[in-house]
Amino acid sequence: MISRFAPRSHFPLQRINIGARPPCNLRFLSVSPTSKPPGPNRFLRVTRTAAKYTAFTCFSAVLGLSVLIGGVFIHDAFTYSDKHVDRVPVSPLALHPERGGPKNLPIASVLVGDEDDGALVAGQDKPRLVIVGGGWGAVGVLQTIHPGDYHVTIVSPDTFTTFTPLLPSAAVGTVSVRSLIESLRKIIARLHGQLINGRAVDIVMSDRLLEVETVCATGEHRNIYLPYDKLVIAVGSVSSTHGVPGLEHCFQLKTVGDAQAIRRRILDNFESASLPSTSEEERKRLLSFVVCGGGPTGVETAAEIFDLCQEDIIKYFPKLLRKDVSIHVIQSREHILNTYSEAISKYAEDKFQRDDVELVTSARVREVHPDQVVYTTRDPDTGKVIEHTIPTNFVLWSTGISMNPFTSRVSSLLPNQVHKKAIEVDAHLRVKGAPLGDVYAIGDCATIETSIVSHLLELVEEADRNRDGKIDFEEWEIMVKRIKKQIPMAATHLEKACNSRVRSLFDLYDSDSDNALNLNELAVLLQEIGNKITALPATAQVASQQGKYLGHKLHLLATKRDVLLANGLPSATDEAVAGAFNYRHLGSLAYIGNAAVFDFGRLSFMGGLAAMYAWRSIYWSEQVSMRTRALLMIDWVVRGVWGRDLSRL
Amino acid sequence: MISRFAPRSHFPLQRINIGARPPCNLRFLSVSPTSKPPGPNRFLRVTRTAAKYTAFTCFSAVLGLSVLIGGVFIHDAFTYSDKHVDRVPVSPLALHPERGGPKNLPIASVLVGDEDDGALVAGQDKPRLVIVGGGWGAVGVLQTIHPGDYHVTIVSPDTFTTFTPLLPSAAVGTVSVRSLIESLRKIIARLHGQLINGRAVDIVMSDRLLEVETVCATGEHRNIYLPYDKLVIAVGSVSSTHGVPGLEHCFQLKTVGDAQAIRRRILDNFESASLPSTSEEERKRLLSFVVCGGGPTGVETAAEIFDLCQEDIIKYFPKLLRKDVSIHVIQSREHILNTYSEAISKYAEDKFQRDDVELVTSARVREVHPDQVVYTTRDPDTGKVIEHTIPTNFVLWSTGISMNPFTSRVSSLLPNQVHKKAIEVDAHLRVKGAPLGDVYAIGDCATIETSIVSHLLELVEEADRNRDGKIDFEEWEIMVKRIKKQIPMAATHLEKACNSRVRSLFDLYDSDSDNALNLNELAVLLQEIGNKITALPATAQVASQQGKYLGHKLHLLATKRDVLLANGLPSATDEAVAGAFNYRHLGSLAYIGNAAVFDFGRLSFMGGLAAMYAWRSIYWSEQVSMRTRALLMIDWVVRGVWGRDLSRL
Repeated sequence: MISRFAPRSHFPLQRINIGARPPCNLRFLSVSPTSKPPGPNRFLRVTRTAAKYTAFTCFSAVLGLSVLIGGVFIHDAFTYSDKHVDRVPVSPLALHPERGGPKNLPIASVLVGDEDDGALVAGQDKPRLVIVGGGWGAVGVLQTIHPGDYHVTIVSPDTFTTFTPLLPSAAVGTVSVRSLIESLRKIIARLHGQLINGRAVDIVMSDRLLEVETVCATGEHRNIYLPYDKLVIAVGSVSSTHGVPGLEHCFQLKTVGDAQAIRRRILDNFESASLPSTSEEERKRLLSFVVCGGGPTGVETAAEIFDLCQEDIIKYFPKLLRKDVSIHVIQSREHILNTYSEAISKYAEDKFQRDDVELVTSARVREVHPDQVVYTTRDPDTGKVIEHTIPTNFVLWSTGISMNPFTSRVSSLLPNQVHKKAIEVDAHLRVKGAPLGDVYAIGDCATIETSIVSHLLELVEEADRNRDGKIDFEEWEIMVKRIKKQIPMAATHLEKACNSRVRSLFDLYDSDSDNALNLNELAVLLQEIGNKITALPATAQVASQQGKYLGHKLHLLATKRDVLLANGLPSATDEAVAGAFNYRHLGSLAYIGNAAVFDFGRLSFMGGLAAMYAWRSIYWSEQVSMRTRALLMIDWVVRGVWGRDLSRL
Repeated sequence: MISRFAPRSHFPLQRINIGARPPCNLRFLSVSPTSKPPGPNRFLRVTRTAAKYTAFTCFSAVLGLSVLIGGVFIHDAFTYSDKHVDRVPVSPLALHPERGGPKNLPIASVLVGDEDDGALVAGQDKPRLVIVGGGWGAVGVLQTIHPGDYHVTIVSPDTFTTFTPLLPSAAVGTVSVRSLIESLRKIIARLHGQLINGRAVDIVMSDRLLEVETVCATGEHRNIYLPYDKLVIAVGSVSSTHGVPGLEHCFQLKTVGDAQAIRRRILDNFESASLPSTSEEERKRLLSFVVCGGGPTGVETAAEIFDLCQEDIIKYFPKLLRKDVSIHVIQSREHILNTYSEAISKYAEDKFQRDDVELVTSARVREVHPDQVVYTTRDPDTGKVIEHTIPTNFVLWSTGISMNPFTSRVSSLLPNQVHKKAIEVDAHLRVKGAPLGDVYAIGDCATIETSIVSHLLELVEEADRNRDGKIDFEEWEIMVKRIKKQIPMAATHLEKACNSRVRSLFDLYDSDSDNALNLNELAVLLQEIGNKITALPATAQVASQQGKYLGHKLHLLATKRDVLLANGLPSATDEAVAGAFNYRHLGSLAYIGNAAVFDFGRLSFMGGLAAMYAWRSIYWSEQVSMRTRALLMIDWVVRGVWGRDLSRL
């Protein structure tokens, strides 16, 4: 085929016709019932044709690749520039901000980039949306609002967002940390937004001012006020200590910095263990890896450490090291992955047993020392507490979350915030107690109120059509509808037995059997339903859905605002543009070492390599940008071809 | 074409023949002189054929890519394993090393990995080659010796080797640091060698013991002795301070750690400069980048910082920041890149002038403060020293080299080591004064002796055929030949005027005109020639060539050794297997911001993008592994498509 392609124009027509014959051989490739059995001659022709097609395919493939590479080169050549920047318009107020607010700090009402281009100039008149944090929640908002909706500013101590679910992979070098992060500046570029690299420390809600702590080059802290019209708090959480002493000797795995530190320590341990100056006892301690917490992060980290030993350490370090490696997972519950289905826990436990990863369940970590972990278990027969120690030089602490300082500050500012681990928000994600529609909180730092009883009076107000102060069954049905709309998390508890359940609930709590619920009876009923609602877990999935919900709502509010403003009407309320936030659990997944488990509610799925590839592809599709997608794919291929990078950096 | 491919077997033969007609249209693509002018019908057919071929090409390209990806997947699937490691044979001596030597330290005569496989067991009987360092020189040796030649151990505080010429690119994120490094363990795997992660601190030459300082997990230092038969010192150098105070406020660019720190500081400066709390004066200071040293490293770093501002900062930071950026290069000589040809210096200076990169030449840095650099220039008219200051928050110090502690220790141990900046070696790279053939030094830490006069007596011994104590012209010619062989660096100075020069030199120094040189006359002559020889520059190219030369020689020695040993003869000397080291300068190159310069001795070449791609491809081909090649290529493409990563990590 190639031969026909290339020298075509040099031959007279007849020659080409002869040359054009081979495609007619195609017929020999199709085996029809009437065709003769293949002779040697025919076999030769078929082979030749096949060879030609193969050659042409290869040629085309190379051609396609060359065109691709050529295209990349040409594109690349246009990415270099030496244009000069001349006059840049900057408002004097941006250069010399006024002071004000309760602490008389500079108020950043105009930013230096506010007049950089037309879109930014136009944005100056828009309501100021300030987003605190740069994680899943914040990025969810940034991805769903539209350019021109708001004057967007993001306040974050990190200048990037992190794909947290793959941190365990980054901790051993299966993927590179740079493949998990995307610059926030690049994400907000779409919205012509701006980034302030700092840490929110306080709010003045009456003046709508956010106090931001920035660090200047000399290390000096300088606080400023950032005015907002809408504030989104999405600062995440810190690890919970559970009051265990010695946690300063533990690693955590919440940031890429943590992943880098873990990777350094793991390789350090292997290097130290291979030194001639290391004793046997010390070698075993260096090669003992302890993970406290049997949730997905802990399990995946243990699995990744196992992979590292199995696939790379064994090849490039003395074999004795691989033999001396021990991995422990200490879990306070009876099973690891206890939020997953039972079959999944079992599968993961079996897999770990085969891999010699030791699971210590129903155990409590008592203390962490620089060279060992002390934990206790209870004797199943006597109930006596037994103390154990594991000598180790690597402890990962991955259990529970706690408030960060800003979250506690916000919580303390508001009178009716009582939750200990997060800011309470209503079903519309508005911070309870803050001026309505000014402040939102999403992700790990927020928890949606589950109390229905606190809405008792307004519910009765709406449902009690005949104004008799009691709720009959018809009114109860209205109320249920209302509760479902207002607090979607209560829906399952009201719905489970459908209407029959609504009726039975009604009858159950109608203690005086007057076929109506009085306020007392209602209060008891709503209280008990509220108690049954479990808070949403502190996962990326929840934060992301909340962010997207909020971003969508903010966009709708912005769209309505302009119409209402033109008609001289006040802004719309959240309820007017969107329903309450409704979490849809899409499933949980976890990597357990050349195998993966999926829990899609009713459907569980677990398996080996195929499941691992499925696990990868789900995370791959969840990436925030094409850049991280490309980099992740490359990382996985590079690991396959050359193994993990064992350089301790 | 695709349509014929896919459903082929579903059609009866006749149909396929009809379907096979299109290829016959090929004839219409060939324009023969007798063919008719193209009509609309013919045009249609030609177009259709062209479209079919294009479609088939695309299909094949996609197919080719799919096969490639499928292949990668299949290969990947076989890289996971859960094999168990059972018994690992380890010598008791490796677990409990004996103590000995002057300091009674553990002697690592057997390592824990020494019995891991057959090749390692066989290697135990081979002479022990210990290489100190993991840079260009060490890798040169590792790449050229053969598996089985020696029992190879490498001692290095870093576990990887670095492609140093691209560090300026890594310092701004054009390439990733991980793309510049390759694990030493992976490099020595080919030789079944082992790595000791430590720092050489001392040598006991009489006992052939290298003292290595290792750091255990608690931070405690533990020293051990490592026995050697052949020792290669390739520890590189540290930056020279030139006695300037305040260098602790400067960055250096010798390691990937330096590159990471620089990248962090640069992005820090931009983030701080964009804060509303930053004053105008402070912003200009934060955006002022000062490079001290106009050699390739300094120039390339300045160029890369310029690129970063020009291509990325301008897109994602307020435009005011780009405007306020200033880059200074302070050079003590009259021109930057002063070791390159004049045309190149000029070209680079012109490019920098166009780019607003300020060059301060003939200037001396007097002092570096945390917030400014003080330098002096001399008034060209009055000769008076004038002091200048540049406010800055980033100073790179990239000028000159100095001995590291181990190098000075080795130097101090030997009586005839007088060089202040490196270990003196003979033309065979053997450390002067050390037991002959035991210790070699290569790269930045070594300098080849240029003194010919010290060989005076042996030269006369050999050349003075008639034993009259004088050297006549015939004997002088023998002596010149000998000098050229023994000290190749002297060759140019003896050769330049070819034989006529040899004669003229002879006549010039024959002060008593007796047509013979007596010892005094010879001493003066050789002394003066020696003074003219310039030491080899401290570059990667020199280190790499020395490493490869030495590796090759060590291989030849190993090959000879076995033959000689079988015949009961002593080992061969270096002179018996290889000539003296002869450096061949392959040219110098430098990147100067979307442009590059090349100096190939007589030929200079400089230009814009095309030169930049040429510069990249030279460095690309110089990579130590396919892995770093692939990663570098990816980095360059990623920069082109998505720009540099602006995340401060």
